Amino acid sequence: MNRERRDRLRDAAIEVLAESGGRGLTHRAVDAAAATPPGTAKNYFPTRDSMLRAIAERCVELYHQVPGGEPVDRDGLVAMFRGLLENVAGPGRSRLLAYLELQAEAARRPWLATILDAIAATDFTDFERAQRAAGLPVTPRRAAAVTLALHAAVPHLLADGHDTLAAAGLNDLDRFVRDLLDTVYGRESEPPEAT
Amino acid sequence: MNRERRDRLRDAAIEVLAESGGRGLTHRAVDAAAATPPGTAKNYFPTRDSMLRAIAERCVELYHQVPGGEPVDRDGLVAMFRGLLENVAGPGRSRLLAYLELQAEAARRPWLATILDAIAATDFTDFERAQRAAGLPVTPRRAAAVTLALHAAVPHLLADGHDTLAAAGLNDLDRFVRDLLDTVYGRESEPPEAT
Repeated sequence: MNRERRDRLRDAAIEVLAESGGRGLTHRAVDAAAATPPGTAKNYFPTRDSMLRAIAERCVELYHQVPGGEPVDRDGLVAMFRGLLENVAGPGRSRLLAYLELQAEAARRPWLATILDAIAATDFTDFERAQRAAGLPVTPRRAAAVTLALHAAVPHLLADGHDTLAAAGLNDLDRFVRDLLDTVYGRESEPPEAT
Repeated sequence: MNRERRDRLRDAAIEVLAESGGRGLTHRAVDAAAATPPGTAKNYFPTRDSMLRAIAERCVELYHQVPGGEPVDRDGLVAMFRGLLENVAGPGRSRLLAYLELQAEAARRPWLATILDAIAATDFTDFERAQRAAGLPVTPRRAAAVTLALHAAVPHLLADGHDTLAAAGLNDLDRFVRDLLDTVYGRESEPPEAT
């Protein structure tokens, strides 16, 4: 199996799932999107389940490619979380629409639910570590409240509904993250350093 | 059109969408689930879009039937929010799985996105009002943080992933809601009334 071709097929499968939904996810559609000869997708991912698994794994890989880094202060944390949310509304949109479809499919597939469980649980661990690294007075419940708000933001950003974005404060992502941290940890108290 | 039969078809369509996903949502499957003669579903909802619209509208109706009420204090608010979350993991499961599918379909259908936008935005308004009614020191950002956490809880409860529920604190829903309010509003300070 050719690794480059396999990634092209997996990326194409994400695009197909995002654009056409579960109903449109066929080997034929994936080959068309990847510009590979008919039969290629079926050769790499013989069953529908193997294709869904490949999509889930590729989503995880792409997620880890979103620039994050270890924040060293509150501003760094804001930049990190804002970057994740900007990715949802930007280059990560297809990946997250596909993820939304996977979530629905997972309700009928325990093996897929297990993969998604690991992904979601890792967010709670990673985001808590980032909040600690930024020097915030973290408790597990505070850190979880921040992670939950970021998770909730994802479908709202994907849906792009005017009233919901306004109500959630998601029209301004930098402001959204700062307000969220202020709400959970109290307002930033240190005055800006005079330079 | 027979109203009782129409509701039976809409409820059946929710079950089909929840159990079989977008791929399984056909007129034939809805008639089978509703135990109506073949052709009935197509008669009531001629197109796929009209069926999706009927499902969205029925989801809203069912949501408003979840016991809520106007909380008069913090305990009442906890009971209200806990009730909503218990519904997700209990009798509301099909409705919310169907809603998850609608969210994905909405990415490809602006008219459906508009309906879902109104639903989500209403949550922010209603939950903020409930927090005010309970006597909490509400600000729009605090109220939104609570609503976002409740929204994020929904897919996690539906997915029922062990690690994610533990990380999010969703294994104990009463505790989850109390901790969330403590995190956003500070710990409840009044001692319990001596009776």
